Amino acid sequence: MYALIGTWQMCLDGARRGTSLLRAGACAGDAVEQAIIMVEDEPSYSSVGYGGLPDSTGHVYLDAAYMDGNTLRLGGVMSAENVRNPISLARKLCGRETNCLLAGRGAEQAAVSFGLQLRDMRTEASLEAWRAAVAKQQKKLSAYEEHDTVCILALDEKGGMAAGTSTSGLFMKDPGRVGDSPIVGSGFYCDARYGAAAATGLGEDIMRGCLSYEVVSLMRRGASPTDACREALTALTERKKSLGEDEGSMSLIALSPDGMFGAATTLPEFPFAAGRGEEAAVYTVKA
Amino acid sequence: MYALIGTWQMCLDGARRGTSLLRAGACAGDAVEQAIIMVEDEPSYSSVGYGGLPDSTGHVYLDAAYMDGNTLRLGGVMSAENVRNPISLARKLCGRETNCLLAGRGAEQAAVSFGLQLRDMRTEASLEAWRAAVAKQQKKLSAYEEHDTVCILALDEKGGMAAGTSTSGLFMKDPGRVGDSPIVGSGFYCDARYGAAAATGLGEDIMRGCLSYEVVSLMRRGASPTDACREALTALTERKKSLGEDEGSMSLIALSPDGMFGAATTLPEFPFAAGRGEEAAVYTVKA
Repeated sequence: MYALIGTWQMCLDGARRGTSLLRAGACAGDAVEQAIIMVEDEPSYSSVGYGGLPDSTGHVYLDAAYMDGNTLRLGGVMSAENVRNPISLARKLCGRETNCLLAGRGAEQAAVSFGLQLRDMRTEASLEAWRAAVAKQQKKLSAYEEHDTVCILALDEKGGMAAGTSTSGLFMKDPGRVGDSPIVGSGFYCDARYGAAAATGLGEDIMRGCLSYEVVSLMRRGASPTDACREALTALTERKKSLGEDEGSMSLIALSPDGMFGAATTLPEFPFAAGRGEEAAVYTVKA
Repeated sequence: MYALIGTWQMCLDGARRGTSLLRAGACAGDAVEQAIIMVEDEPSYSSVGYGGLPDSTGHVYLDAAYMDGNTLRLGGVMSAENVRNPISLARKLCGRETNCLLAGRGAEQAAVSFGLQLRDMRTEASLEAWRAAVAKQQKKLSAYEEHDTVCILALDEKGGMAAGTSTSGLFMKDPGRVGDSPIVGSGFYCDARYGAAAATGLGEDIMRGCLSYEVVSLMRRGASPTDACREALTALTERKKSLGEDEGSMSLIALSPDGMFGAATTLPEFPFAAGRGEEAAVYTVKA
């Protein structure tokens, strides 16, 4: 039984491509990479890849990661400029025993060494948004409301699992700021024995609870994907409240080795795309 | 009851400074930062701070992190050059709600904005080691044998806990390579309710198991620091063996909220410094 789940409405086309690849016998890794490439290449999605919104200096810096649930190996890209498909670079890095997590210029150099395409990731629209933010001296950073990191989790017919994430990070972030998306255990985790999970929202909060690892850990102990997402999220939001903070903006998705999927969110509504033995469709979960 | 534990013999002077600060009533964060500064400033330690060994291009890039176990907030520095005390920068970043994890040039710019000192971190000895490695075309990367990342975990008299890590990473690493040390959940985790843990060794392996979060999670479920370290490490090494890999090079330390400490390692011997209500001394754990 193949299955796939991804964050936000924006991943629907990619999720459908992923499920059709899985139906045709592709491995989970191919489904994850191809689904995310579709989101990265679409300029209208302002939080991922080409057309992603710039940092405070007007540059677009990208974060991405890939994890192979069969081997527990991972690859990650942090604060990289000009890499057309960060998810493909992350997947290439996953094949290495060392140097599998690269930041900055070193990531861009690795993309070149792998023969991957470079591209100026800024569009007229993203630069215009940046100029407007500079003009009104925007300071406060917050997670996006209706889109954010694209995360894809996949299970193939052979029981293989993989996870991937890709984002341009917070609009107007400081140069070099990295969120949870390329951070194993926080933005993603995948173990084909127990399941996969990924997170979207304010990375600085998600990292405090290592939410993706916690979700997989709860599934390892018998929780369903939905219950695992809810329990991990509630533990952190309760802790935040005990510290006098608000719940924050965080959403989680999870996939079990038998293809069951689940999600949880602190938002009024969090849409995600998922398919189990069929083409992906959009679902919504509420706080 | 105050307590402190740190990785490797090299941290002993720092660990003693930390325990004497704790005895005098300092908070856990001050003990962690001051202990690590002593290791960073010592040029003879070739895996941390000043005098750390260069990457393949002859530059020294530093990783560090700090976590406040009372608030679960964290700060991290990745692939930063010229920052004299990366642990102090990580602690400053921990005070922020966003932009608390910074890579590359952005981290160096943040150090300047905080008024922290910059320094060329290379020494004649570290450059000579790099020239020799280039001359013999050294390729294979491995964890250090008798020293590596400095990690310090502390508990203060008020029950506050903090964790810190600092490293220059693998000798001859690729530019931009980041290991587990600045990665929450892998290189470190600290929750004053349940305990703290940190890791040293080959970061690419440590990240596959989110080992520090797993240790704290096991302590949350009732395990002693020693048992938690052993169980987390064994789970990953068994998994590596099932994949046809060797055990690898990894060591863990942990501290509980009542000041008990523990460690585990895959090495023949792993020395660490620890003190509970007294000056730190060196202990050794074996695989």
